[in-house]
Amino acid sequence: MTMAHILELDFMLSLLSLFGIAVFAVSGALDAARKGMDILGFILIGTVTGLGGGTIRDILLGNVPVYWIMDATYVGLCIFMSIITYFIAPKLASRAKTLIWMDALGLSLFCVTGTQIAATAGAPPLISICMGVVTASFGGIIRDVLCGYDLILGNREFYVTVAVVGGSTYGILHWVGAVESLAMIAGILAAFSLRSAAIIWGWSLPSYQEKK
Amino acid sequence: MTMAHILELDFMLSLLSLFGIAVFAVSGALDAARKGMDILGFILIGTVTGLGGGTIRDILLGNVPVYWIMDATYVGLCIFMSIITYFIAPKLASRAKTLIWMDALGLSLFCVTGTQIAATAGAPPLISICMGVVTASFGGIIRDVLCGYDLILGNREFYVTVAVVGGSTYGILHWVGAVESLAMIAGILAAFSLRSAAIIWGWSLPSYQEKK
Amino acid sequence: MTMAHILELDFMLSLLSLFGIAVFAVSGALDAARKGMDILGFILIGTVTGLGGGTIRDILLGNVPVYWIMDATYVGLCIFMSIITYFIAPKLASRAKTLIWMDALGLSLFCVTGTQIAATAGAPPLISICMGVVTASFGGIIRDVLCGYDLILGNREFYVTVAVVGGSTYGILHWVGAVESLAMIAGILAAFSLRSAAIIWGWSLPSYQEKK
Repeated sequence: MTMAHILELDFMLSLLSLFGIAVFAVSGALDAARKGMDILGFILIGTVTGLGGGTIRDILLGNVPVYWIMDATYVGLCIFMSIITYFIAPKLASRAKTLIWMDALGLSLFCVTGTQIAATAGAPPLISICMGVVTASFGGIIRDVLCGYDLILGNREFYVTVAVVGGSTYGILHWVGAVESLAMIAGILAAFSLRSAAIIWGWSLPSYQEKK
Repeated sequence: MTMAHILELDFMLSLLSLFGIAVFAVSGALDAARKGMDILGFILIGTVTGLGGGTIRDILLGNVPVYWIMDATYVGLCIFMSIITYFIAPKLASRAKTLIWMDALGLSLFCVTGTQIAATAGAPPLISICMGVVTASFGGIIRDVLCGYDLILGNREFYVTVAVVGGSTYGILHWVGAVESLAMIAGILAAFSLRSAAIIWGWSLPSYQEKK
Repeated sequence: MTMAHILELDFMLSLLSLFGIAVFAVSGALDAARKGMDILGFILIGTVTGLGGGTIRDILLGNVPVYWIMDATYVGLCIFMSIITYFIAPKLASRAKTLIWMDALGLSLFCVTGTQIAATAGAPPLISICMGVVTASFGGIIRDVLCGYDLILGNREFYVTVAVVGGSTYGILHWVGAVESLAMIAGILAAFSLRSAAIIWGWSLPSYQEKK
């Protein structure tokens, strides 16, 4: 890759990360709406959902201060999106539907960037893919814990499976030496396609009780 | 500032921190009383409430080992206060009221010291104030999660607003170059006044449902 | 100690750690069974329970990347044990009983290794014993929070007391200069004996309500 390509990729990555953070923040803020919280509850849940997964990834990898400490853009974006959501949430006709598609986008982006960051830090493949899953899903898990939701919901509809597929698709292409931007786009598309199918056709893994 | 002033300030800060940790530990232990826990539950919830906010701040900033690892004073103080609370809790006439005023004190101290520590570590203003909020409120948030309380309660009565006001008051004075001790006292007083008013007159932000 | 002894001890320690992680993962996966989760829920809860305590210990001590990042054995083992549990759980006659004895084993191992790691890192005695308690119990606490269980249950039957006794027994022998392997075995046996007695005779600390 030439220097220009690397810069382009970095720029694309930054934009994608910010987009993913923004949609996760909105998804978190919509949950705050469902719980009838005040505007600071919106900001807290929105920010935690937007930044939580990447924060836990950075802490586990030892990338500290975590990525949003020295650059106020990330926290600022989450606060901004949460406030916007506070004022426009009532106008969103089908809140649940909007929420689930936004989640799908954020999930697809984060499982790939999370895997990439861990792989770049030298973690083995299995751990890198796990870091993709952590980046994609732990913001939502913290949100669910804070909102008092049942975690089971988060495991249905292939949520973690999607993150594994997205991270693995990126990972395999990355480790065989494919062009980085291609590997990332492939991972994002693989995750988003699977998640879309799961949402549209209501796919889910059999639960333990159904299996019994 | 002369060296003597710096030493005085450091000493004052240490004392204030210990006082804040002690009151948060008592507040946590009183929650353990409400949940009917055994003495180790008191110690666990008391210690987590006392040290949790600063611990998360240190982890996010990369200040590791976190502040209480190499000096047993902090953990020792929390354990001591939790045990004391275990034995005197039944004698406290109005537990809820005691709890809320202790919380107000700890909150006012921690939002200022948290902001200060992050600002000193080079974090931008927005992030520094967030670290003040984290220091002041995440001990209580972890306590609420562990006790199974509804998070909404923690957001009422201006709790986070108070931390933002305290941290910002300190921050503005700090960044314009005011004497450090003055900036801190102003921040603590601003936070405590607002919190007191909110408690006395029952102020709260409108919740999303009320607004609708 | 000769080099051969040190290598033997290291090998024994690694084996014990892996055994403790495996039984905690199974115990977590059995909880996922009780909540009727899908196979990914089993893996999530199993892995978090197996690695959670040591992860929080490492984060607090600043041992980052945490111990399972650069070596996929730990996460691989947790995933493997969780999957096995998913398929054999229905055949386990008395799930609750199996769960409690496995927990007892993991608890006894982790309170000692956790204390040892913190003491080696230079933490004072009180903090080292606390790190033993954290290593032994925070995986289970995270599991309980994720599964929505009431925390009080986790504090009964001497759970934390056992970790304190195991860590202190090891610690006293360690600090007076006993042979390391002897100190560890003594700590593990002390913890396991107390826990066994507590399980068999149903010992528990008086709760606050009973005391009143």
